Amino acid sequence: MTRYLLTIEYMGTGLAGWQRQEKAISVQQIIEDAFFQLYKTPIILFAAGRTDAGVHALAQHAHFDTDVVFEPYKFIKSMNFFMRPHAVAIYNIETVNADFHARFSARSRKYVYRILNRKWPSAVYKNKVWHVSETLDIEKMREGGTALVGRHDFTSLRSSRCQSKNPVKNITSIHIEYNRDLLEIEIEAPSFLHNQVRIIASVLAECGAGRLNAAGIEHILQARDRTKAPKTAPSSGLYFLGASY
Amino acid sequence: MTRYLLTIEYMGTGLAGWQRQEKAISVQQIIEDAFFQLYKTPIILFAAGRTDAGVHALAQHAHFDTDVVFEPYKFIKSMNFFMRPHAVAIYNIETVNADFHARFSARSRKYVYRILNRKWPSAVYKNKVWHVSETLDIEKMREGGTALVGRHDFTSLRSSRCQSKNPVKNITSIHIEYNRDLLEIEIEAPSFLHNQVRIIASVLAECGAGRLNAAGIEHILQARDRTKAPKTAPSSGLYFLGASY
Repeated sequence: MTRYLLTIEYMGTGLAGWQRQEKAISVQQIIEDAFFQLYKTPIILFAAGRTDAGVHALAQHAHFDTDVVFEPYKFIKSMNFFMRPHAVAIYNIETVNADFHARFSARSRKYVYRILNRKWPSAVYKNKVWHVSETLDIEKMREGGTALVGRHDFTSLRSSRCQSKNPVKNITSIHIEYNRDLLEIEIEAPSFLHNQVRIIASVLAECGAGRLNAAGIEHILQARDRTKAPKTAPSSGLYFLGASY
Repeated sequence: MTRYLLTIEYMGTGLAGWQRQEKAISVQQIIEDAFFQLYKTPIILFAAGRTDAGVHALAQHAHFDTDVVFEPYKFIKSMNFFMRPHAVAIYNIETVNADFHARFSARSRKYVYRILNRKWPSAVYKNKVWHVSETLDIEKMREGGTALVGRHDFTSLRSSRCQSKNPVKNITSIHIEYNRDLLEIEIEAPSFLHNQVRIIASVLAECGAGRLNAAGIEHILQARDRTKAPKTAPSSGLYFLGASY
């Protein structure tokens, strides 16, 4: 048995997210099925982050074990050929030790949340961003971000269905950049809670619109109550940038 | 008669380019037809830049004359509704003077050419970039760019089918930036020759790969011979960023 680690990218639009589902197509299923078609033997993938429906990945990592012997270049080429009807592609494969785990060995994870900040919705960026029509002040968003970096109880900023036992997380960094009307919030942390990045994006947009500031964010965190924070930003703006091992 | 100026964006993938064609769908046709469906009277659009097949626009400008009276907000909403099967959307409309011309009044035009520089082709950026698999050195590309800025005879760097009488053009600026593996070449000039930006992108990629430098570019320009320059880079990487008036 050899353990392999894949690096994968995908547009999550129209997909059920990373994890295999009963009644909808997932990224995991697309890749596992392509492997089965190609090598006539099943694999099970374990991903660094189980992205939700509609969430994209510029770099997702997943490991699997197999006895099948293949040439890496040919493997990627053939797998991508089978997956070509979907916006899913592998772009790296490497062998890892048997004790490596794509999820549990990850030291850090990074996401970028993209906001298109202009009056009208976009034909070009449809399903690829969160369209916010009111003008956002980047400096106010950056100031809001400072209240989120570090170790906090994020009960107020996670999905009410989040199953993690510990709501305390340590955000390593938040960087906000923009290019023309496209705004990017890059967030890094050892791990995240369910919907945490999307709720943070929403909180920072409220800051940019002038309705919230660092002091307000501290109040929201202290409340430990999901209903005190703004709604979850749409999945279309979220991109997983991968894990560090 | 009132003259209106539109700002439009589109993904050129699968379209015949800006200009109306006999046997293929163009951006001009999509917009003119939507207007006709909506207001039952024809318009003729005049664009700032007639982009080729497969070329995108983050900002294209086009003017038209009409007697139809409409409310701008409702106009954009209704037009975009009619155009929704296509990746074409209007995002601004303003009235202009009768002597304004989207093409002839433009003082300057800007394009960005996007290169995805990594080993494997991309599912996410398919049809949206030029995929270059060999590693490009940004500093060498920037150095190559300095040989192109300013007034030059661009005979070697325009389509052999270019119909412009004067091959001398003045490039105002070339800026090369990157974010992760996505490389952007932003080029501004009062006007461009046919395929000029795509051939420049190809020339700069050659510089990045180490096969060409500023001195080599000067030789190519002096030759005034299209065959001395590298092939035209694909349309998929080119985005019109609009004109200044």
